[in-house]
Amino acid sequence: MQIVKDEGPITGEQIAERLNLTRATLRPDLAILTMSGFLDARPRVGYFYSGKSGNQLLGEHLSKLMVRDYKSVPVVCQDEMSVYDAICTMFLEDVGTLFVVKEGGILTGVLSRKDLLKSSMGNQALQNIPVGVAMTRMPNIVTCGLEETLLTAATKLIRNQVDALPVVKEPEKGDGLEVVGRITKTTITKVFVEMGQGTSV
Amino acid sequence: MQIVKDEGPITGEQIAERLNLTRATLRPDLAILTMSGFLDARPRVGYFYSGKSGNQLLGEHLSKLMVRDYKSVPVVCQDEMSVYDAICTMFLEDVGTLFVVKEGGILTGVLSRKDLLKSSMGNQALQNIPVGVAMTRMPNIVTCGLEETLLTAATKLIRNQVDALPVVKEPEKGDGLEVVGRITKTTITKVFVEMGQGTSV
Repeated sequence: MQIVKDEGPITGEQIAERLNLTRATLRPDLAILTMSGFLDARPRVGYFYSGKSGNQLLGEHLSKLMVRDYKSVPVVCQDEMSVYDAICTMFLEDVGTLFVVKEGGILTGVLSRKDLLKSSMGNQALQNIPVGVAMTRMPNIVTCGLEETLLTAATKLIRNQVDALPVVKEPEKGDGLEVVGRITKTTITKVFVEMGQGTSV
Repeated sequence: MQIVKDEGPITGEQIAERLNLTRATLRPDLAILTMSGFLDARPRVGYFYSGKSGNQLLGEHLSKLMVRDYKSVPVVCQDEMSVYDAICTMFLEDVGTLFVVKEGGILTGVLSRKDLLKSSMGNQALQNIPVGVAMTRMPNIVTCGLEETLLTAATKLIRNQVDALPVVKEPEKGDGLEVVGRITKTTITKVFVEMGQGTSV
């Protein structure tokens, strides 16, 4: 690999010469390095370094996982609901984030445990605070689409320091974004565990 | 691979015969399958199926990542602190879980956003509830050790439905477990993103 990195494009024959090996001896190794993506080969040109490390190849594997296939069911509420009832809903549904929607499932806000804790620090009774006051509101919401990769979604989670993303699509009629799923840090952690067990994909 | 799976151990010559190919033609392919771990080969025996899928091989890669190398700094508090102050600490330190410790950093409890939300639903003022009442208490805490793999830690997060694990070790003197770090779903999501960028490990 070092030879190809330094001198590529270089033919198999030239590499064999440099290593004092016959081409036949070398052929399986070059085949492995080519098939596994570390080297590229072009007929009548020779081998050259693909610039991809083992980790990049792992990355390519990961980039085949799609939001569409891993999203879970969204738990939604309306913006007149009280913060108190929203906390109850969270416990009942066992989720860490609620999506606030209006008619047609159109996204208007996101309500995280953090938002609810912030409300609970005030002096007002939680029964009297509507969700609409506590939530993060459109257009300040980070979303993801069905055709995005899980990797893009995970990157958004980390960059924007949020626990969950609503998965959205264009509604059949009208404006806005329709909520069709959710991707959370739990989703990503589950995929990580599945990959380790060799059962993913 | 199917031939080897069905009839292994089988020699390269026999496989070539079955496929109407010369051994020379087949050699690079068998070399790839062997080197990538799908097949095993033993001299004077032949090729046999390793039973490892591509995902299992990916799993082997993942199982090299250790808690020791990925843990972040734990944020701790004492059990006399009020729930109100604990929520403030969470916001100031930007974490989702606090570890409650006594002298010597010995773990006594874990306080999640969920625990705090549950407290905030009661009628009592949050300033008057001590953390000790709201927290999950030893020995009901799931922990992980420095020499465990990230995969084991992630599995514990999912199985026990918690957001964070305290990383613990035996204290230099005395009983109990000393808190030395934390592993959260955020940790795992970050590693997932890094793998995708090919920068991990």
